Amino acid sequence: MRNTLSGLATPIGIIGGMGPHAHLDFEKYLLGTAEHDQDYPSYVLVNASYVADRTTAYHATKAGQLLSQADNPLYGLRGAVITLLRAGCQKICMVCNTAHLWLSHLKEEFPYVEFISIIDTSVQALKKLGAEEVILLATEGTIRSGLYSNALSAAGIVTHIPSIEYQIAINEGIYGDPSQHIGGVKTGDIQAANTRFTRVAYAMLNEIAQRKHKSVQEVIASKRVYLGFFCTEIGVAIDDPTLRAIAVDSTEVLAAAMRQLALENKES
Amino acid sequence: MRNTLSGLATPIGIIGGMGPHAHLDFEKYLLGTAEHDQDYPSYVLVNASYVADRTTAYHATKAGQLLSQADNPLYGLRGAVITLLRAGCQKICMVCNTAHLWLSHLKEEFPYVEFISIIDTSVQALKKLGAEEVILLATEGTIRSGLYSNALSAAGIVTHIPSIEYQIAINEGIYGDPSQHIGGVKTGDIQAANTRFTRVAYAMLNEIAQRKHKSVQEVIASKRVYLGFFCTEIGVAIDDPTLRAIAVDSTEVLAAAMRQLALENKES
Repeated sequence: MRNTLSGLATPIGIIGGMGPHAHLDFEKYLLGTAEHDQDYPSYVLVNASYVADRTTAYHATKAGQLLSQADNPLYGLRGAVITLLRAGCQKICMVCNTAHLWLSHLKEEFPYVEFISIIDTSVQALKKLGAEEVILLATEGTIRSGLYSNALSAAGIVTHIPSIEYQIAINEGIYGDPSQHIGGVKTGDIQAANTRFTRVAYAMLNEIAQRKHKSVQEVIASKRVYLGFFCTEIGVAIDDPTLRAIAVDSTEVLAAAMRQLALENKES
Repeated sequence: MRNTLSGLATPIGIIGGMGPHAHLDFEKYLLGTAEHDQDYPSYVLVNASYVADRTTAYHATKAGQLLSQADNPLYGLRGAVITLLRAGCQKICMVCNTAHLWLSHLKEEFPYVEFISIIDTSVQALKKLGAEEVILLATEGTIRSGLYSNALSAAGIVTHIPSIEYQIAINEGIYGDPSQHIGGVKTGDIQAANTRFTRVAYAMLNEIAQRKHKSVQEVIASKRVYLGFFCTEIGVAIDDPTLRAIAVDSTEVLAAAMRQLALENKES
């Protein structure tokens, strides 16, 4: 609904900042291209960099520790939702897969908000492509919690989870390790992350190919095995066109869903 | 001030979407790099793509036309300020130089908001560099209104304004011209814009060099003549490192000022 005084009465709301570079990637997809400024979608984004680290919180909870407010992502996420509600947003998404571990809490607390889930959107995209098997590239929190594997199993899709060795490489690509002088997406070192993610993706494709007595090229060409970029910071970094061609990038599919909602808002 | 329930009690506010690609560039500078998500600045951004075109409104007003609400940028800008106020922001900036034509109206209407001006920030940056002359690369609205030339003259800096022919090339680089199949930054064609902006910048540097009986290289090396990227969509496109080395990019300097405010917020 248009409202010239306050722009759009109900802009879509985005919780970004988890991490910041991922939401820049998200916005690039969300904006797309248009002929005039006025044809682009409108939205409000909170760079909620104050949300506690999601994977750390997951591990602590699993280890039986009680989280303080400062260490519990739910408090920051709740704050970001309140900020977006105040700004007039009713359709809200979170540009972070692992944050979706707290989605059910937010839904309970804000029953009148429509949360658009990155998990649902990504699983729908894979079903539409006719995916039979998916390699899960994500944070340890997302993988261990079963956020994706449960939803994919329910959709009849087989999931491949990185070995511990591969997962360590992915963790390093996402977070970096300043004490070891290792850079990652969250520290701004996209190139170092790209090298790690690409190596793991090809190694896992190779293992699947060997099991099927096929070449990696044949597996890729089959269009049955996909890569799931299920951390928003994985799609930021991987630039190999062969890998991208068989990838469902959760950042991109969530942005497409939000773009559609924003443009519907504009027309109504 | 920290407030775990609602994130930061007073996040900085950004009016983006004029155009959208410019604010992505702005956010990249604003975020910078950090070791952890939690070390990045927090902010709220409105993608106010609904704000009417600023240069069109300037021309219409100059031609004595009365603007409708839909054609008057003030209505959209006011809406974006209200959205940011509701979201708890008190320090607000606009990622668009031409929009600053309406800044005095906004200041009058919202006297309790601290608006950080892109003009003031850019002129301060030029003064700090010891600039004596500046080539103004901006929209026609920004140039003709004297937004920069008045402030620069007051600071004792000589301004060079593009000829009509050059300004047309800059306009095309910013807006493109779909009817002529010409792309620009606002339509997503960064490369086409880069070609136009770079050509004009070198041509104007060459004219200054001839007048001084020097080579372009000598003028550049003197560090007395600067390029002012005074439309946020010019810095997005120009990638020539020689030009960037003598440029004050209004997007970058405004982002640096806002980043400082955001990090001060975090610490206090």
